[in-house]
Amino acid sequence: MRRGTNVHALGGFNQIVILDTIRRNRDGLSRVEIAEQTGLSAQTVSNVSRRLLDEGIIREAGQRILGVGKPRIILELDPSGGYAIGVHLDPSVITYVVLDLDGRVVAHQALRTPSDVTPDRVIASMRDSIEALIVEAGVERSRVLGVGIAAPGPLDLERGVVLDPPLLEGWHGVALREALAESTGLTVLLEKDVTAATVAELWMSSPHQRDDFMFFYYGTGVGVGLAIAHEAVRGATNNAGDAGHIIVDPDGPVCGCGRRGCLGDSIMPRRLVASAIATGLIARPVGRLGATEVDEGLAQIAALAEGGDAEASDLLEATASRISVAVVTVANLLDLDTVVFGGPYWNRVSRVLLRRIAELVNSSPALVTTHPIGVAVSSIGDDVAAVGAACLVLDDALSPRPSALLISG
Amino acid sequence: MRRGTNVHALGGFNQIVILDTIRRNRDGLSRVEIAEQTGLSAQTVSNVSRRLLDEGIIREAGQRILGVGKPRIILELDPSGGYAIGVHLDPSVITYVVLDLDGRVVAHQALRTPSDVTPDRVIASMRDSIEALIVEAGVERSRVLGVGIAAPGPLDLERGVVLDPPLLEGWHGVALREALAESTGLTVLLEKDVTAATVAELWMSSPHQRDDFMFFYYGTGVGVGLAIAHEAVRGATNNAGDAGHIIVDPDGPVCGCGRRGCLGDSIMPRRLVASAIATGLIARPVGRLGATEVDEGLAQIAALAEGGDAEASDLLEATASRISVAVVTVANLLDLDTVVFGGPYWNRVSRVLLRRIAELVNSSPALVTTHPIGVAVSSIGDDVAAVGAACLVLDDALSPRPSALLISG
Repeated sequence: MRRGTNVHALGGFNQIVILDTIRRNRDGLSRVEIAEQTGLSAQTVSNVSRRLLDEGIIREAGQRILGVGKPRIILELDPSGGYAIGVHLDPSVITYVVLDLDGRVVAHQALRTPSDVTPDRVIASMRDSIEALIVEAGVERSRVLGVGIAAPGPLDLERGVVLDPPLLEGWHGVALREALAESTGLTVLLEKDVTAATVAELWMSSPHQRDDFMFFYYGTGVGVGLAIAHEAVRGATNNAGDAGHIIVDPDGPVCGCGRRGCLGDSIMPRRLVASAIATGLIARPVGRLGATEVDEGLAQIAALAEGGDAEASDLLEATASRISVAVVTVANLLDLDTVVFGGPYWNRVSRVLLRRIAELVNSSPALVTTHPIGVAVSSIGDDVAAVGAACLVLDDALSPRPSALLISG
Repeated sequence: MRRGTNVHALGGFNQIVILDTIRRNRDGLSRVEIAEQTGLSAQTVSNVSRRLLDEGIIREAGQRILGVGKPRIILELDPSGGYAIGVHLDPSVITYVVLDLDGRVVAHQALRTPSDVTPDRVIASMRDSIEALIVEAGVERSRVLGVGIAAPGPLDLERGVVLDPPLLEGWHGVALREALAESTGLTVLLEKDVTAATVAELWMSSPHQRDDFMFFYYGTGVGVGLAIAHEAVRGATNNAGDAGHIIVDPDGPVCGCGRRGCLGDSIMPRRLVASAIATGLIARPVGRLGATEVDEGLAQIAALAEGGDAEASDLLEATASRISVAVVTVANLLDLDTVVFGGPYWNRVSRVLLRRIAELVNSSPALVTTHPIGVAVSSIGDDVAAVGAACLVLDDALSPRPSALLISG
């Protein structure tokens, strides 16, 4: 059903438009400038600013004198006007961040994901970590807008349930959103990890800087987040972003699906490290091949390749080639202009892989786009999915959406 | 820059919302029902309807008596209130349609694409065909809202230029949009063929029937159109939809890109027919293997397979398998729920392939979606891209977009 609009729906929208305009102008701006940029009347800008000042969401930041006119009071976001918590549940590490209203990380913690315990216990430890982090960050609890959680898919977002992620042992149909909302008393939003990472990139970039891009997430598993026209792609059930079965190497290892050379299986960090151990390139760790050992092994392989070791170089060259085939496939399909690499394991291999991937993608005879594909590393770092999850909370509170103008059903 | 909204921007939007509501209710509806469905006031609905009646875009369609109240006058779209022309430039055939305001095809023509002539000559023949079709359809020329053209990519949509489609010989940097606008005096919109087909499906379906789907276009070449959240995906330069280099069969034929088993090359109609001729499955045509011969050859292969011929069945089974790998890849990536098959050659093979593809996709160990993938044939038929091109014209004129509410910069 299509809904119309009326004057009544305008107020809230304009408040968020003004807030968004202030947020995007890092140096602050005057009421006159806000009116110019938004097309709103001086009166509307004045009324809305007064309300935002009273609520402590924006603040006055000195005056600016332009020509002979009256000095103009500069308004800027008050970063302490609100806070969002972001949690990223990865099979090997749980990352927590607190973002202020300005999207800056004011507190951060990363803890090994407990293994051999039930999801209930993991969720209880999440609540403890969240409460401890709020205290540590010195944030007034009433200013916390909510918690965003990034989790591996597949998810049932309607019910807030983690279904059965292949790499998260023991998690089957866990009602994560509700459990955490009940135990913290906070609003909780759930999102797939790669989508959260994409949201972080969207939130931290200016419009048109990241319009049609892929976030290549290199974690315990491999996934891609997608944005089309500066909007995250979520798909029919919010589980978009599974690139694991793109065939990238007909001579690659046999995947669980029975075919050879699927992306996920042939480049995941654990496989690279296991393969380097098998050939004696790096030493076998004393204990089992856990997350720490994979991380260290990957760093060793990269160091060897940078030092000129032929076997390590070949291993990473094959990885660059496989990633490039996937990038070309997706860029062709969606006409992307940029690929952003990130995730917990990416920085281990980025120095060796990034430039090579850019070369392979842009020289590929299979690339059909009418423009080169830009290749970049996420500027947000290892926390990207947690930051993205927190951005969802900010987004929910701060972003103007024209659809919000429609009279609600 | 974010723009605000004001009362001034509301009028046009509400008119389009009301028109859209009337259009979507095929049996017509009363002013009271329009007010209920849109949330708009009785006064607004009354004013806007009066304007639309005066312009001949809607009409009164009798009365409906409900209970003891006053009979209500039913309003419905006046299909003759406006017309849109759609043109589909395919390497082998140019299709023309005239759509009324209701989206019904009121005239249609398909002509072999002239070969061995310059693009200028083709464009001149397009103009002649358009003018002839308007006359033939008995449409008042002043009621023609514009012309939409669906063309093979890559396109430069900013300049309205056909860049260098691999299968359209002699077309390099042709300013198709401007040339046709000048020669017809009509507004001309240009769109990539697969995107136009997707727009047709979106336009002809109700919301939620086709939200996240792929249009698998089986023409001279193979492409896919994509829709996410009931919006066509266009990408950075409006050239989204190239699926030709998805690797679908490591044992497939060598592609122009140097790899084996790329989708486009391994399933395109010409290749299937050439392969069937090479093995003696079907007879070699007397002349060259043109569009007609490919079409007939494909029909012969399908008939043989339906008759139980093992070689023909194997050829089509390999085709079904290759298409299925591509469908799984894209469905995983975008979390699609449906694949719609169509395009000029699809109906030749649909009876053999469709059910088999549904089986292969939904039993694939590589499919990771949490739901089955629906498989359907486009209900629009061979004209789908031309219809979609015409829908762009209707869409431009009739669809409510909340973004239109923002004060223009």
